[in-house]
Amino acid sequence: MHIGITGTGSYIPSITTSNSDFINNTFLNTDGSAIPNSNEVIIEKFKKITGIEERRYAKKDQNTSDIAYLAAEKAIKDANIDKETIDYIIVAHNFGDVSHGQIQGDVLPSLASKVKHLLKIKNPKCVGYDILFGCPGWVQGTIQAYAFIKAGLAKRCLVIGAETLSRVVDPYDRDSMIYSDGAGATIIEATNDSGNILAHNTATYTVDEANYLFFGKTYNKEDKNDRMYIKMHGRKIYEFAVTHVPQAMKDCLDESGIAIDDVKKIFIHQANEKMDEAIVSRFYKLYNKNMPTDIMPMNIYKLGNSSVATIPTLFDVVRKGKLENHAVKKGDVVIFASVGAGMNINAIVYKY
Amino acid sequence: MHIGITGTGSYIPSITTSNSDFINNTFLNTDGSAIPNSNEVIIEKFKKITGIEERRYAKKDQNTSDIAYLAAEKAIKDANIDKETIDYIIVAHNFGDVSHGQIQGDVLPSLASKVKHLLKIKNPKCVGYDILFGCPGWVQGTIQAYAFIKAGLAKRCLVIGAETLSRVVDPYDRDSMIYSDGAGATIIEATNDSGNILAHNTATYTVDEANYLFFGKTYNKEDKNDRMYIKMHGRKIYEFAVTHVPQAMKDCLDESGIAIDDVKKIFIHQANEKMDEAIVSRFYKLYNKNMPTDIMPMNIYKLGNSSVATIPTLFDVVRKGKLENHAVKKGDVVIFASVGAGMNINAIVYKY
Repeated sequence: MHIGITGTGSYIPSITTSNSDFINNTFLNTDGSAIPNSNEVIIEKFKKITGIEERRYAKKDQNTSDIAYLAAEKAIKDANIDKETIDYIIVAHNFGDVSHGQIQGDVLPSLASKVKHLLKIKNPKCVGYDILFGCPGWVQGTIQAYAFIKAGLAKRCLVIGAETLSRVVDPYDRDSMIYSDGAGATIIEATNDSGNILAHNTATYTVDEANYLFFGKTYNKEDKNDRMYIKMHGRKIYEFAVTHVPQAMKDCLDESGIAIDDVKKIFIHQANEKMDEAIVSRFYKLYNKNMPTDIMPMNIYKLGNSSVATIPTLFDVVRKGKLENHAVKKGDVVIFASVGAGMNINAIVYKY
Repeated sequence: MHIGITGTGSYIPSITTSNSDFINNTFLNTDGSAIPNSNEVIIEKFKKITGIEERRYAKKDQNTSDIAYLAAEKAIKDANIDKETIDYIIVAHNFGDVSHGQIQGDVLPSLASKVKHLLKIKNPKCVGYDILFGCPGWVQGTIQAYAFIKAGLAKRCLVIGAETLSRVVDPYDRDSMIYSDGAGATIIEATNDSGNILAHNTATYTVDEANYLFFGKTYNKEDKNDRMYIKMHGRKIYEFAVTHVPQAMKDCLDESGIAIDDVKKIFIHQANEKMDEAIVSRFYKLYNKNMPTDIMPMNIYKLGNSSVATIPTLFDVVRKGKLENHAVKKGDVVIFASVGAGMNINAIVYKY
């Protein structure tokens, strides 16, 4: 039995925010002091490191569960399955439905229940739950679907990564320019002829790393509000990621029995262009190789970092031939790899 | 191979709030109109239906992850295991860490990462994630641990149900008297001699039921704040639960191959005494039997409804001989059953 991805779908929100839209922001240091550089310099430096030129935001009337549903509908259609035959709906996110203008995240009921309701699935044996696992949530949801299928609890799962980070960003924080909204969905199922998950690997680092990404107050010290926003220790995350992710990817690939030269594409969490390049470059270094050209599809330039949504969205776009210079064909071995809040790291070696 | 519970622990918060502590509340109908009855009458009626006399609240400086950690420590000690050998930490909750006086729930990082940090577990292969599944979250986390062990992804899991509902209650809502705080933890592992999960069953109803429990505004219409609280359509939930939970329990028991007369205890989510009695009574009716005396341990009277924490807490207390008239011994068949937001239902038939 194979456990493969038989359908994909993504929803790319319609509101485009370019870097120049941040030109009038007041960016502050963590201690609230002014940043000496002009916004032009800050934005130019930001673009150089992250690669991000623009990002997408969901419309005011859309919540995370709404865009999760839109991606899910496409994945179901793409897999050409009867939605009533889905055994599990697994939704990875981190903040729930944060309605525009609200500060609380709503997860009552879970986003999986909301998505199932929107999909109008009647079968009560279709179980919906949410997983919170930082940015690597979609990869982990896929590993959980794999486990349920392997253990006989399910035959067919819908795994979604959806997030609206635009609702939890501090306008005084330069890092806010990184974050975006998006949703990607996949159908994972037991099959004879489709692709196959060959190996997977997960790790959680918490001794020193637990709060590298955290929920914190605005950098504007004059704002006495208690409201919290997504915050990160960017430098520490960079060092952590380039140290641990390449080895986790290697352990996974070695377990799969696939040779490094047979890897055709690496779908890495679109966190930051420089960091992603450093991770993949170091991964190849572990095999005493140089990173091949076109191994790493990237769409962070136009879509930003939408957390759990980046990998399923990127995979969907490449799979459907919509990203220039990148394609996958039957038999290709690809790697999914992610790193994020927790701090969590994971990887899957997948034969397409 | 058996997959059994080898250790349990619970943390019962220290602040006791009795029904009389609500005597000066202004309880309103959903439309904001005054309730004609006096608070004495409202509280007496509440007690008669729910059985609740008092409930526990966490201390101001404790969050959900803190009490989850305290329960986890006890379960690890009880199982007499090296914490570094735990493969998964699964934390079921619904609102994250809602600090006292705050309105946002904090799940960055996940509560599982926070608990792992507090437990000082170093092993990065100990993977922590959170599951959102309404009140049945701990039972579902246990089913997921079972799946991971069965599929070869894990040998030993720590499954925690923890919640601080006191942080998300509307003081104008009578239902607020139901909710409480608590944490229960269990070690689930592959063993040869310990207990065994014989069968499990889960369902998610979302067509009409998705919002029977929901995040909604205060009943005080003069309060124009957007803050949301846990809210429920109590009557609908009651009808739903007594209709669907008994059959789900029966399906699970029948699948296990165990005869109804061999069931020794039913650990049911402590939601509401009258509802729990109706569920278990109807479950026995499906076998043309009357509900036996002392089949259903209850501690809702003193602890209220702490969501995901009720079953692991109750099981821990009975297992350790701390609940009058109730005990479990090796070989006893027990049922865990829950119902809650989603709307989700689940059951496990377990040989102790």
